[in-house]
Amino acid sequence: MPDRLAILACGGALPVRLAAAYPEAVRVGLSGIPNDLNGDVDLHRLEKLGTLFDALKAQGVGRIVLAGALARPAFDPSAFDATMVAVAPRLMAAMQEGDDGLLGTVIAIFEEQGFVVVGAHELLPDLVAEAGLQVGPPPSDADLRDATRAWDILGALSPLDVGQGAVVAGGQCLGIETVQGTDAMLRFVAETPAELRRGVRGVYVKAAKRGQDLRVDMPAVGPRTVAAVAGAGLSGLVIEPGRVMILDREETLQAALDAGVFLSARSL
Amino acid sequence: MPDRLAILACGGALPVRLAAAYPEAVRVGLSGIPNDLNGDVDLHRLEKLGTLFDALKAQGVGRIVLAGALARPAFDPSAFDATMVAVAPRLMAAMQEGDDGLLGTVIAIFEEQGFVVVGAHELLPDLVAEAGLQVGPPPSDADLRDATRAWDILGALSPLDVGQGAVVAGGQCLGIETVQGTDAMLRFVAETPAELRRGVRGVYVKAAKRGQDLRVDMPAVGPRTVAAVAGAGLSGLVIEPGRVMILDREETLQAALDAGVFLSARSL
Repeated sequence: MPDRLAILACGGALPVRLAAAYPEAVRVGLSGIPNDLNGDVDLHRLEKLGTLFDALKAQGVGRIVLAGALARPAFDPSAFDATMVAVAPRLMAAMQEGDDGLLGTVIAIFEEQGFVVVGAHELLPDLVAEAGLQVGPPPSDADLRDATRAWDILGALSPLDVGQGAVVAGGQCLGIETVQGTDAMLRFVAETPAELRRGVRGVYVKAAKRGQDLRVDMPAVGPRTVAAVAGAGLSGLVIEPGRVMILDREETLQAALDAGVFLSARSL
Repeated sequence: MPDRLAILACGGALPVRLAAAYPEAVRVGLSGIPNDLNGDVDLHRLEKLGTLFDALKAQGVGRIVLAGALARPAFDPSAFDATMVAVAPRLMAAMQEGDDGLLGTVIAIFEEQGFVVVGAHELLPDLVAEAGLQVGPPPSDADLRDATRAWDILGALSPLDVGQGAVVAGGQCLGIETVQGTDAMLRFVAETPAELRRGVRGVYVKAAKRGQDLRVDMPAVGPRTVAAVAGAGLSGLVIEPGRVMILDREETLQAALDAGVFLSARSL
């Protein structure tokens, strides 16, 4: 059984960390989806999925990790190879659903080819936080009430495959993450008129959707998230233990310390 | 039994329409909450709720309509009269909940004083739309799928007293209304990067929360909503029949016609 690891590198720091931890891994990327491996990666076209599969198999790959921000790419149907022609209808139908629908389909397509799809958190276990205050001042009772309300909002949306994050301040919901992502939502929160904020800071909560396959699109926070949380005037962020990655852990904790916001991992 | 009508006028066009339809009604407003009655209104301080109640009773008021956008006002506890001292703890606790919690408490306080609180839609029945396409091109099947998904999202959030509106485009949720309101959410949607929109227009759905007391803060759309929907590149808007007001009906329908977007009232 081939069991060499391949890293399918999309955007962000995660593929870089994986490549550093697994230097023997095959590195592949997709044309049109930026990655930060600095060219040290074999680029394939999404339209030629069969070619990608063949190349992986030829190199003894048995396991693959899909790492980084997988944008929904545009593609050119006239360039499809036979494999892509076969799977394109399923991909296109899945795109009509939420992210989990699409990514679940992507996993299934890799698995049908005999690959084992592994999660980045399985390869880098220190990526996820265990329960507990990670850094910063402990959340107040009011912060915990806000966090619990945000958690409940995410729980209600979870069956609909919507919402990995929400902001609540003084009981009022100021933002629910949609496809534009965390940064856009926190900028929106930062622009909330002061008379609606009523002087209450509030909390950002990030959790995986219930039943979410953590092998792809696992929620993640990093230094930029912390900066955005502080920029939105919030007291801190609460992440779900074991199911949200902390990218660049040291830098992230330092950023929280510098900004005076807390980062806590807890179930609510 | 006194049964004279009073209009408690907050922001927007609704108090103006009510005042025109009920010229004999007593008009009151709250200092610090703008209204558009051009000074033809008795202003009271929220801190002196007892004085407001006494003034209404002295004028034979038995029914009151709370009309317009009721901002959450700042107040000065040192100026409270006895009535306000008695009810302030409940008001402040209710402010920690969603809008419905606060407004439900406001209604209860008026009712305890013997006033009947009536809804603007009961006084102006043509404010709400019956089911059916109001104006514009009929929504496509894809629009209806998006509208159904937005409707489901609102339904999931409804028990949490969050969300009177949501935007879905091609199955992807682009925005969920939070305390910043419809315009802010639609501006956020308008700023969605094109690669996330994938060329799909999408639909805005506005519905009352399940179990919402429609006597206050009934969802409403108007010409500005239609302009924001068009500005966000959406195909149109779907409102819940009977439970969402159309303010300035003629102007609203004309705005939709001019912008080429549909306005449909339907349950999904």
